[in-house]
This record gives sequence, structure tokens and C-alpha cells, in this order.
Amino acid sequence: MPQLYIGNKNYSSWSMRPWVLLKQAGIPFEEVMLRFDSFDTQSHFKATVQAVNPVGKVPVWVDGDLAVWDTLAIAETLAEQFPDKALWPRQLQARARARSICAEMHSGFTALRSHCPMNIEARLPEVGQLLWRDKPAVRADVARLAAMWGGLLDAHGGPMLFGDFSIADAYFAPVCMRINTYALPLPAAIQAYVDRVTALPGVQAWITEALAEQDFLDFEEPYRLAR
Amino acid sequence: MPQLYIGNKNYSSWSMRPWVLLKQAGIPFEEVMLRFDSFDTQSHFKATVQAVNPVGKVPVWVDGDLAVWDTLAIAETLAEQFPDKALWPRQLQARARARSICAEMHSGFTALRSHCPMNIEARLPEVGQLLWRDKPAVRADVARLAAMWGGLLDAHGGPMLFGDFSIADAYFAPVCMRINTYALPLPAAIQAYVDRVTALPGVQAWITEALAEQDFLDFEEPYRLAR
Repeated sequence: MPQLYIGNKNYSSWSMRPWVLLKQAGIPFEEVMLRFDSFDTQSHFKATVQAVNPVGKVPVWVDGDLAVWDTLAIAETLAEQFPDKALWPRQLQARARARSICAEMHSGFTALRSHCPMNIEARLPEVGQLLWRDKPAVRADVARLAAMWGGLLDAHGGPMLFGDFSIADAYFAPVCMRINTYALPLPAAIQAYVDRVTALPGVQAWITEALAEQDFLDFEEPYRLAR
Repeated sequence: MPQLYIGNKNYSSWSMRPWVLLKQAGIPFEEVMLRFDSFDTQSHFKATVQAVNPVGKVPVWVDGDLAVWDTLAIAETLAEQFPDKALWPRQLQARARARSICAEMHSGFTALRSHCPMNIEARLPEVGQLLWRDKPAVRADVARLAAMWGGLLDAHGGPMLFGDFSIADAYFAPVCMRINTYALPLPAAIQAYVDRVTALPGVQAWITEALAEQDFLDFEEPYRLAR
């Protein structure tokens, strides 16, 4: 059985992407959950991850001899290994667009990622209001998301970005979690997409397990002193 | 004829990747060169790029109706469109590893990228020595590169990371340019790989055109007052 190494479900946005993708696609796997710790070289987390990934980061997909790290590489490998699942859109133009927006997410949206860290259990609407007032780069990131999602939902008719669920929706699922936590304002049609992603069975399963964790890690908590 | 939109060859590390990939693979394309300017919304650069890519960044691959942005999405699309070119390694494990290290580059090596911006015409060995002395994160990035490249060259026997030239070598070509400019120290076997990448015909063609540009853009020049 292949294994997916992941970090805390409440905090690890990168881990969430392939996990939700696998669950939604119905691909069986064994979860190897490594709770975040000090991240020192000798820590349990680092020692365990580095046995399969020299970079020492989650997520890692391990399938026999195959060890794949980084969400985009995992997504491409799964799309190849399970062609019948249509993890990318089947149509060439749609697939190219899906890859473009996932790569854009992978290296971009830095303001949203740095100011609004994923924290599924937290409800921080006042923080969101302050960020919205004071951080033009956060507003610009959200405006780009709304334009991107709006255009794709119009072009493909929903309910997901390219009609049926695809890697692209898994890729933006952690962004939807951030929007929920910080209550960032969106046009109604875009908020409805966020709500549909939140309601996906794979996302709901992740959220349930995130809420059960009840860890509190200072370095993931710029806005709370305790749970 | 498909088009590749790129920025300045001297500075645009992201543009270099697909350009070198296309040249080395012998895939015909028309280059659309947009020299960097103010990047204001109304600038020639932004207006031209945004006509094909809502993000307003280069590179963009335009093939009929198809507009693909971001280097990883372009690389995956080209690998699909030209399967006979074996742009990714043909063997499953090697391909998964190649994808992993390209994705790692795509979202990582931030110290090297921020402190050693690509500047092909410049020779800045003293700056490199200062960075090497004062920036442990730069040393860590270079150590990771040396370990990654050394392991792959050993495993596949060279001359490129996975034996024959692949997307992975195109992906690290701009890193080789940075190593050259800042004269960052490397073990001899790793430096020999950098030299082989530098000598690739596609890379040499890019360098020649970079040297002919002779632009000077302040925001790309943290270490020089003039050419």
C-alpha cells in the first residue's frame, strides 16, 4: 500500500492538497502522520521525513521504490499512475490552464500565504478585517483568486473549477480554509465555490481530523496565545 | 508557429528555463521578447503580457488557443505535446525524481534566489565571497544543490542529471548562471556539471543574446551602480 507522509492537519496546507486529492479520487493509501515538532535536525519529524525525502519536508508520496516530494510532483505522478481517474481535466486547453493556475499557486500568493497561515480550527475574522484594511497585497491576492475562479466557473459551468473535481480544486482547498478562518470578503458566486470545496467529502474528512488534533504550535500561531 | 513570451535574457531566470528546453529539444518556436520596464499596469511589458496571461508575468507559451504560464506548467505541457522528445526521463522512478527536484526548485532555494539574482553578464566573485561568509542560508542552498546533483550524477552516470538532457537540467540552468556570476564554491565534480550545463548549445545561445542586450535595470542590480 502506498504511503502519504503528512504533517498536522490543522496547519499543513501543503499536506492537505495530495490527501484531499487521494480521498476525492478514491485512491487507497496509508497515511503516515508526523506531527510538527521543533524541526531540529535530530527531531522525530525531521529524522523520519529525511529517511524518505532528503529535503526533510512533507508531503511525501512513497510507493515501493518511488519517493516523490512536493505537491506538484506528487499530483503529476498520481495523474500518470491513475489515468482513469482524470485527475487533470481531460481536455488539452483545460489541462494546460489547470497546470498554469496550480503552478501559479505553487510559487505565488505570498501575501495571502504569509499573513493568513492555514489554521482550520481558528476563527479569526477580526484579524482578517485588519489584514484587509492594512495589507494591499492580501487584497490583491484575493482579487486574483476571485477573477481566476470566477472566469473558470463561468467557462466550465461549475460546480468545481473545471466542471468535475480535479487537481486544481485540491490545490486551492487550503486557500478556501484560509478564507474561512479569516472571513475574507468575496463576491457571492466565489464564496459559493469556497463553500462547495469546504463541503467536499475529502475536505470534510480532513477538517474533522484537524479539529481533533488540538495541538498548539507557536510558530504556526501569529494571532493566538493559546487554543 | 507557437510563441514563447520571455523577458530580458540577462535577468529573467524563469524565462531561461523553457527557452533552453525548447532549443535543446529542437522544438521550433517564435520568441516574443519583452524587455523589462516599469511593470506599471499601463507599461508596454504588462499590457502585452496580460493580453495572453492574466498574471502579467513571463514566460508564457502560446500555441493557438493554448496559453500556458509558469515554467512548470509549460514544461509539463511540452512533455505531453512532444512525447518523442523524452523531455522528462522515460523511466518512472527517474521521472518522479526529476519532477520532485523541479518542484523543489520552483518553490524553494529562496536564499540563493534573493541574494544571488541572475545577472549573466556580471562577474561578482567578491559579492559571492561576502554572501558565502555572511549568509548561512545561501551556503545551505548550495549544499543542498551539491548533494542533489552529486547523487543524481552518481546514480545515472552523467553527463546530465538523469543521463541525457531533460527538463531538470533546463530547470537548473539559471542556477548554474548564478554560480558562475557569484563564483560560489563547489566540489570539483559538481562544478564540472555546472560547466557542462554552461556549455550546452541552448545555454550558450541564451548567454550570447544576454550579453548583447546591455540593459541596466536598477531593480535587478543590487550590487552594481552601472554596467
